[in-house]
Amino acid sequence: MPKISDERKAERREHILAGARRAFAEHGYEGATVTRLEKATGMSRGAIFNYFPSKEGLFLELARRDNEHLVRLWLDRGWEAALREVVEEDPDWLGVYLEMTRKVRTDPEFARRHEEHAQKELAHELIAHVRAGQERGELRDDFPPERVAGFISLVANGVVLQMGFGERIRDVDALVDFVRASVEPPRARARPRTPARTRS
Amino acid sequence: MPKISDERKAERREHILAGARRAFAEHGYEGATVTRLEKATGMSRGAIFNYFPSKEGLFLELARRDNEHLVRLWLDRGWEAALREVVEEDPDWLGVYLEMTRKVRTDPEFARRHEEHAQKELAHELIAHVRAGQERGELRDDFPPERVAGFISLVANGVVLQMGFGERIRDVDALVDFVRASVEPPRARARPRTPARTRS
Repeated sequence: MPKISDERKAERREHILAGARRAFAEHGYEGATVTRLEKATGMSRGAIFNYFPSKEGLFLELARRDNEHLVRLWLDRGWEAALREVVEEDPDWLGVYLEMTRKVRTDPEFARRHEEHAQKELAHELIAHVRAGQERGELRDDFPPERVAGFISLVANGVVLQMGFGERIRDVDALVDFVRASVEPPRARARPRTPARTRS
Repeated sequence: MPKISDERKAERREHILAGARRAFAEHGYEGATVTRLEKATGMSRGAIFNYFPSKEGLFLELARRDNEHLVRLWLDRGWEAALREVVEEDPDWLGVYLEMTRKVRTDPEFARRHEEHAQKELAHELIAHVRAGQERGELRDDFPPERVAGFISLVANGVVLQMGFGERIRDVDALVDFVRASVEPPRARARPRTPARTRS
């Protein structure tokens, strides 16, 4: 058998993940049969499952990457950029997440594997990031950083569910404005008013 | 055949709905087979489908009632009471909603029937209620009432999704506080500060 370079292997993994994502989005989790995964990736089941342990492993890897992408965006460019990115997501792919909630609730083994993919270090990084924002006076500090981060995440979940139901977010700027009012300290929002007028 | 009074009919409908709700919550939508619905209600399939057109009809009626209950609560006792009620919901039943998102997105016939159950009049009543709150200065008025109501609903959706994933809402008071900061006008929130201190 010819030896495949690490680079080529990484490429194939990416190729499989991209195809699987499309198949899940189009057919749902259950509907994305192995045959459909083969069609979407243009690869045989043998080849696919050489790279991933199972269909579930494929899904968990895609979910893990989405989470990492969003948290990195939050860390690098702020919660607003991350929230706007969620609004841009493919509603069909978000729908697959929603389907999986039942599995997380009812299948302890799946819940455990889902938890393993939860990237706790990244979550800690995010809390530290929010705490730093509080210390700079950019975020309200009358609640611990976990609550502030938790509220923003909860709003993102609301976006996911609304879009999963096929309803667009009609006014993203309004959404961002509501969240800003909820997580910034009242002073930060009130601040520009007086000095700006005096100066102009 | 003995004639059944309207009162007895209404009772039976309620009895079937309560049993169906438990069966959906325990087994999921697909898992709540007709046999399981019979067991949960203690009634035969013939009797059940004498009162409801189908399993789907049962689900849609339950969803319609939940929506009506929440909107009435909002109208009568405010958005905070409605939001707290969502937090008290059975996560397993909420999970059934989440399962249905795929059906709403992918089955146009189901989406149409779901839309028919949407209670547009109730939605109009809610918008009028929010507008009145804006006029009294209790809600911010820099966005139309649809946006304010939409943000609160989106947060409720976030609660549904988080609980559907089996995660509790750890601090409901904090959640309410964040939403209050986002939907009340800054003056309403800033107001108590100075006078309260002067008076004490």
